[in-house]
Amino acid sequence: MPTIIVEGPPISVEKKRELVKRFTKVASEIYGIDHITVIIKENSPENVGINGELLLDFKKKQ
Amino acid sequence: MPTIIVEGPPISVEKKRELVKRFTKVASEIYGIDHITVIIKENSPENVGINGELLLDFKKKQ
Amino acid sequence: MPTIIVEGPPISVEKKRELVKRFTKVASEIYGIDHITVIIKENSPENVGINGELLLDFKKKQ
Amino acid sequence: MPTIIVEGPPISVEKKRELVKRFTKVASEIYGIDHITVIIKENSPENVGINGELLLDFKKKQ
Amino acid sequence: MPTIIVEGPPISVEKKRELVKRFTKVASEIYGIDHITVIIKENSPENVGINGELLLDFKKKQ
Amino acid sequence: MPTIIVEGPPISVEKKRELVKRFTKVASEIYGIDHITVIIKENSPENVGINGELLLDFKKKQ
Repeated sequence: MPTIIVEGPPISVEKKRELVKRFTKVASEIYGIDHITVIIKENSPENVGINGELLLDFKKKQ
Repeated sequence: MPTIIVEGPPISVEKKRELVKRFTKVASEIYGIDHITVIIKENSPENVGINGELLLDFKKKQ
Repeated sequence: MPTIIVEGPPISVEKKRELVKRFTKVASEIYGIDHITVIIKENSPENVGINGELLLDFKKKQ
Repeated sequence: MPTIIVEGPPISVEKKRELVKRFTKVASEIYGIDHITVIIKENSPENVGINGELLLDFKKKQ
Repeated sequence: MPTIIVEGPPISVEKKRELVKRFTKVASEIYGIDHITVIIKENSPENVGINGELLLDFKKKQ
Repeated sequence: MPTIIVEGPPISVEKKRELVKRFTKVASEIYGIDHITVIIKENSPENVGINGELLLDFKKKQ
């Protein structure tokens, strides 16, 4: 612990690398703990709803 | 916020559309907040256990 | 299963009753499953950040 | 309820079977409740960070 | 990792001790990993809904 | 979305403010999205197990 669960859209491995590195730095400084776990959850747009609409449909209108 | 995480079996996009729409309506009425996020998690039967048995095995017996 | 986890602000027991009843109706109709679990998580404003600001601080400015 | 969410690496169906069986036994004995749900989440090494590093990169160095 | 999140009713410290010990043994044997984190979430009956009813109300009828 | 759930020990409001600010900055830069939600979960040492032992007991031995 601490364990950080990140619910977001799919991202590249390079961005995951950066996300883990920077989140771990922030969390270990704030919690004063070295052992930090980050779990990245990639959610496709058809599995996310914002204000009543699937992200999939919202993006089609963009 | 509020954020609603739905752990269930795989469903069609059409059903996801309905789920997001109806959950958002209920949540915004009850919480009095418009910005509602719904995250749908699709779990395959081999990743779910009910009363000690994989759903995968339970379904084979049906 | 399905299990619905609702991350939101504190609400009254009466509202929880309504939330469980209405979410369960929607979920059982969409998933075609009767056994639905709803877990309500009440988060205080000092534990929620929106767009970089604690909800606690955002509310002080309202 | 109780619902047990297991965040871990991918494992075989055989191991999932054992995990569900043994977790359910422990949980029902401790909680004194029969209806136990186990949800197994399989996370690929590129989606997990330990101490600032992607598990994917950590494993390459092994 | 692995991280086990247990959503259940309130239990005694003694039972938590046993839950952590036994879950960790099962998980480390199955995953072949020693570093196991268990996070116990205690949910009051007014925050849990089963089949459309608050556990709080269901228990009153028992 | 993205939604970041942080499972950790109790921390001060001042630290929560910093955590939200810095996590939001990292996440919005990496995901390229402004609307970021952070949910901080404070877990007491009796509800966390590390390597088979309650954090509560581990701390007593320190």
